Amino acid sequence: MLVNDLPRFEILDDAALGELDRGWRRIVSELGVDFLHDEALAILGDAGQEVDGQLVRFDPDWILEQVAKAPSEFDLQARNPERTVHLGGNTMVFSAVYGCPFVREGLERRDATYDDFQNLVRLAQSFPQLDSPGGTICEPNDRPLDSRHLDMVYALTTLSDKPFMGSVTSGPNAEDTIAMAEMVFGAESLEQTPAVLSLINVNSPLRYDDRMLAALVEYAKANQALVITPFLLMGAMSPVSVPATLAQQVGEALAGIALVQTIRPGCPVVFGSFLSNTDMQSGSPSFGTPESAVGLLCTGQLARHYGLPFRSGGGLTSSQTVDAQAAYEAAMTLWPTFLAGANFVMHAAGWLESGLVSCYEKFIVDVELLRMLHAVFEPLRIDEETLAYGAHQEVGQGGHFLGAAHTLERFRECFYRPLLSSTENYERWSRNGGNDAAARASDIWRRTLDEYEQPPMDAGLQEELRAFVDRRRKELGD
Amino acid sequence: MLVNDLPRFEILDDAALGELDRGWRRIVSELGVDFLHDEALAILGDAGQEVDGQLVRFDPDWILEQVAKAPSEFDLQARNPERTVHLGGNTMVFSAVYGCPFVREGLERRDATYDDFQNLVRLAQSFPQLDSPGGTICEPNDRPLDSRHLDMVYALTTLSDKPFMGSVTSGPNAEDTIAMAEMVFGAESLEQTPAVLSLINVNSPLRYDDRMLAALVEYAKANQALVITPFLLMGAMSPVSVPATLAQQVGEALAGIALVQTIRPGCPVVFGSFLSNTDMQSGSPSFGTPESAVGLLCTGQLARHYGLPFRSGGGLTSSQTVDAQAAYEAAMTLWPTFLAGANFVMHAAGWLESGLVSCYEKFIVDVELLRMLHAVFEPLRIDEETLAYGAHQEVGQGGHFLGAAHTLERFRECFYRPLLSSTENYERWSRNGGNDAAARASDIWRRTLDEYEQPPMDAGLQEELRAFVDRRRKELGD
Repeated sequence: MLVNDLPRFEILDDAALGELDRGWRRIVSELGVDFLHDEALAILGDAGQEVDGQLVRFDPDWILEQVAKAPSEFDLQARNPERTVHLGGNTMVFSAVYGCPFVREGLERRDATYDDFQNLVRLAQSFPQLDSPGGTICEPNDRPLDSRHLDMVYALTTLSDKPFMGSVTSGPNAEDTIAMAEMVFGAESLEQTPAVLSLINVNSPLRYDDRMLAALVEYAKANQALVITPFLLMGAMSPVSVPATLAQQVGEALAGIALVQTIRPGCPVVFGSFLSNTDMQSGSPSFGTPESAVGLLCTGQLARHYGLPFRSGGGLTSSQTVDAQAAYEAAMTLWPTFLAGANFVMHAAGWLESGLVSCYEKFIVDVELLRMLHAVFEPLRIDEETLAYGAHQEVGQGGHFLGAAHTLERFRECFYRPLLSSTENYERWSRNGGNDAAARASDIWRRTLDEYEQPPMDAGLQEELRAFVDRRRKELGD
Repeated sequence: MLVNDLPRFEILDDAALGELDRGWRRIVSELGVDFLHDEALAILGDAGQEVDGQLVRFDPDWILEQVAKAPSEFDLQARNPERTVHLGGNTMVFSAVYGCPFVREGLERRDATYDDFQNLVRLAQSFPQLDSPGGTICEPNDRPLDSRHLDMVYALTTLSDKPFMGSVTSGPNAEDTIAMAEMVFGAESLEQTPAVLSLINVNSPLRYDDRMLAALVEYAKANQALVITPFLLMGAMSPVSVPATLAQQVGEALAGIALVQTIRPGCPVVFGSFLSNTDMQSGSPSFGTPESAVGLLCTGQLARHYGLPFRSGGGLTSSQTVDAQAAYEAAMTLWPTFLAGANFVMHAAGWLESGLVSCYEKFIVDVELLRMLHAVFEPLRIDEETLAYGAHQEVGQGGHFLGAAHTLERFRECFYRPLLSSTENYERWSRNGGNDAAARASDIWRRTLDEYEQPPMDAGLQEELRAFVDRRRKELGD
């Protein structure tokens, strides 16, 4: 968890914030939002909002009253208390890629399996730059569809001791997640301080679907944290305009957050953003774009304006392989992620090919980027000691600092030490095989898996989780 | 030339600026700076500074009095007046890589030649993101050492109509550069508004060498612009501390700028920064590091504090090849370059392998990065039109914006259009050869050279330049 005490980079003035505020109010009050879930409709209707079939038109001030009930900051428990994270304020929490049907390993691209899932959880556990493995780090396609959420939660809770994300594919799957979390944390502790953070995507534009809403309702009732995220690719799910998309994003997110607060006042929520654009030449989604960078910076400002922790960013790219494009697009998203101070960063490691692929080598590239940015966003201490006048006196004019006493005392810790990057001179690099960053990353993730140690867990608890998975799988008919 | 109207990202508070101010004052007054050039020593001595052999101890307030004579902003002429640039304020001027002995073309790395030099000038001329080809875009190793500056200035003035950088390898070479610029611009116009910008590196720590000073004196007398740049790799030329290095950088740069202003009050100068660190494991220079990013952000604030345009940034990397590392390190320098609003950006395209290599493919990667960042740093207009409420009304809940009238009217211009990046789906990308960004960049620079058109020049002028080159080469014995 990074405490980002550098300033926020804010590009919206008050007039712009006012226009955007006007924009979302008009959308939710005049156009309204679909909720494809009877209980949600009943809750919103009972709360005085105008329900017309599946459409709800909102009073924007009522929305803000509900939003004000959400905590501006909260803790998310990890089973290892030292890994419990804080969401909100100046903290930044990073989790791995989420939701990919494929994996890439070197030059091979294939359907993801449960072995991959477990490996990627182990990698997320191994690097301190990741505060959470996330949730669906890849789709375990070799496991039965109806019960694979059990396998995922089992791997997330046993192979890692960091906070994790819950299943959102249905209400019952959410209930299973909560049941397993209760075994790990105890029911009372779990309700007091959430241990499951779950991603509720809006079926944008202006629609929440039944499965996501069913999961939302279950998690809200259990006081577990929710990331409410409009899913916005401009040109597809929103207009081809960043301001229009920001207004839509605020309206969609706040409407869902208001629902959560109506179900369970004070339930921890995160204002989610997943905002990029369509490549209008190919019609494909496009990631790591300038528009997404701008949208991200604005989203941070808006979330702070409404007093909510926010989720955005990650190492996003459209590249098909771990090349220069993959890296500069990831940086094009990660720099604004840090500048905006995103509180929860999904897809922070491993994302490739517009999110279709969890890539082992890209995972390592992203960890290097995170390590570097963690160093950049560390406040600089400027005082007599760091001015190091003694070193200047020692070396004088035209000298060399490599052998200076000041240097010798500090050379191990004075600078960032790369995980992946090479500064070898050309001859040495060539002699060592002339491996590019992707090839070196391949060595690094394999070595990391070799060195991985499973975090300890009480044998009885592990057995209890195992038995639950087996029983529920049988009940689900798999 | 980008007008960067976004806010500056500033990470130093007043106390930190005060400490750094104290730091450089102590360095120049107590330790002093070597000037290995008799005329420079005489000028500084006559101006009342304490000269002791080659060492000059300065009165810091006297330095600031001289610095105050430098313009805070100035124009740099191009032979095509439409390409004249402005240095200072919110403008950012980008030039290509500088000073590389080698080139890389695909998988081949070899000594750079004059053919390469000309090709790279043509590429810099072709992309609007580059405002200048710079100067020594690579070393033309196949041309005689004593007269190759003539070949370079000839190529810079005839193959490009953008502003260029002058030779700094000696006083006479600077005189040759000025003579050729006088042919192009006319002596009077040249003296009124500079057309040559030249890079004077400090032989850090705390030493200006004779050749650079000889060039500095010639350019200052001719009122041509100078970039005074401490050359600082922490751990080698400065202490292993960013604050100590910043204090040294200010002291070295301002001492040189004070000399320029003493020679020619009002001569346009740029506060230069070239600040990175040594890899303390290998002893090699390391580029695109977190420390250099932090140093860059601070340098912008310091330059503004002293009222000077500043030079920093570029697409720096230590990578040996055009891989993910090359891209994320370039981004690690270019993001703070834009955030700090660097007024003059050298090495903005083509830099590889710690600056030893001018790389054709990296040139294209960097141009893509510049294009993206230009788009990010374009202020966002938020008003009724860009809120596009009509598009929301048109599409409603659960619809798709691709066919909306609002989209159809704007789809060509609404988003950034990449030069290099691919959003092709995996199947299509594979069918098209599965080329990574480096391979695609190779196609792009070749096509760009094929399409290059030499900017028109009066035949008499070109002949005059040619004759000067021939005559001077003969005089120099080559």
